[in-house]
Amino acid sequence: MTKRLRAGAKRALPLSRVYRLLEPGPVVLLTTAQRGRANVMTMSWYTMLEFEPPLVGCVVSNRNFSFAALKGTRECVINIPTLELAPQVVKCGNCSGRRKDKFAACGLTAEPASQVAAPLIAECYANLECRVVDARLVTKYNFFVLEVVKAWVDPKVESPRTIHHRGRGEFMVAGRTVRLKSRMK
Amino acid sequence: MTKRLRAGAKRALPLSRVYRLLEPGPVVLLTTAQRGRANVMTMSWYTMLEFEPPLVGCVVSNRNFSFAALKGTRECVINIPTLELAPQVVKCGNCSGRRKDKFAACGLTAEPASQVAAPLIAECYANLECRVVDARLVTKYNFFVLEVVKAWVDPKVESPRTIHHRGRGEFMVAGRTVRLKSRMK
Repeated sequence: MTKRLRAGAKRALPLSRVYRLLEPGPVVLLTTAQRGRANVMTMSWYTMLEFEPPLVGCVVSNRNFSFAALKGTRECVINIPTLELAPQVVKCGNCSGRRKDKFAACGLTAEPASQVAAPLIAECYANLECRVVDARLVTKYNFFVLEVVKAWVDPKVESPRTIHHRGRGEFMVAGRTVRLKSRMK
Repeated sequence: MTKRLRAGAKRALPLSRVYRLLEPGPVVLLTTAQRGRANVMTMSWYTMLEFEPPLVGCVVSNRNFSFAALKGTRECVINIPTLELAPQVVKCGNCSGRRKDKFAACGLTAEPASQVAAPLIAECYANLECRVVDARLVTKYNFFVLEVVKAWVDPKVESPRTIHHRGRGEFMVAGRTVRLKSRMK
């Protein structure tokens, strides 16, 4: 069911445009790698903090297996899935990387990133390579400040059917686009 | 065009359910009040930080007129609009409260909140009364940590057609809901 993207199908996205992918609030898959072992978790609790360089604040709970890898390596990738990947996204949210290889378990393909050790997820239409730049609120809120250092996007995807978590198994699927005369960036 | 909600049409929402309204990432309208003067701004840069009590982290730029009111009073309301209010949302984003009464200018109705001085927007389907509980990252990122102390929702709205900012005048409108067997909260 999953439409696999072949390596090379993606193009570098100017960092100034990263906010346009994250601001609508899609569920994302966060990948990390530590001691040669990659992991992936679902994430909805994040926000843009700055346009350029793009800064993203995100919550990675210390109950997640990814927490130690993110804190230890200070690197990760934010991968943005679309509706076709919803079953994999839910599978990722339903199990822990503590006991299994979640890429294999969820049917996701890891590809090497260019700037960080954490892998890109091939099946996601966009991938944002990130470094942790501020960990001041980690102790109190599990809140990490990331800088996006490299961004990739599938140029064929114009209106991505992203999924947005409403909790308790409900996801809103991105609908139509409306255009209004806005002066907002 | 705007469907006006009459006062009293809303019900209190248990605070444990607040994350289900914000996690999908809709554009919201942030209201503040200082020295008897209310203001409203559009906001997309926010995230949940904790389920209960619900904590929300948000960016209010110091270039916004609302910044001083939020910092000074440490109170605000997060109001969630739906598609019918898109013209008002854009109007709010296109002008500053420095020179005008934005409620009048944008055709929005202010109603008294129960816990804070900032007003509720009657036309929005949900309103979250908030207090600032952590201002440590305000200097560096304009990032405020809010606690939601009271939540209101129109019980008639089940699948709100929220709008999600893609930048440069583009908004994604919330589409259909899919249900999956998720163990995620």
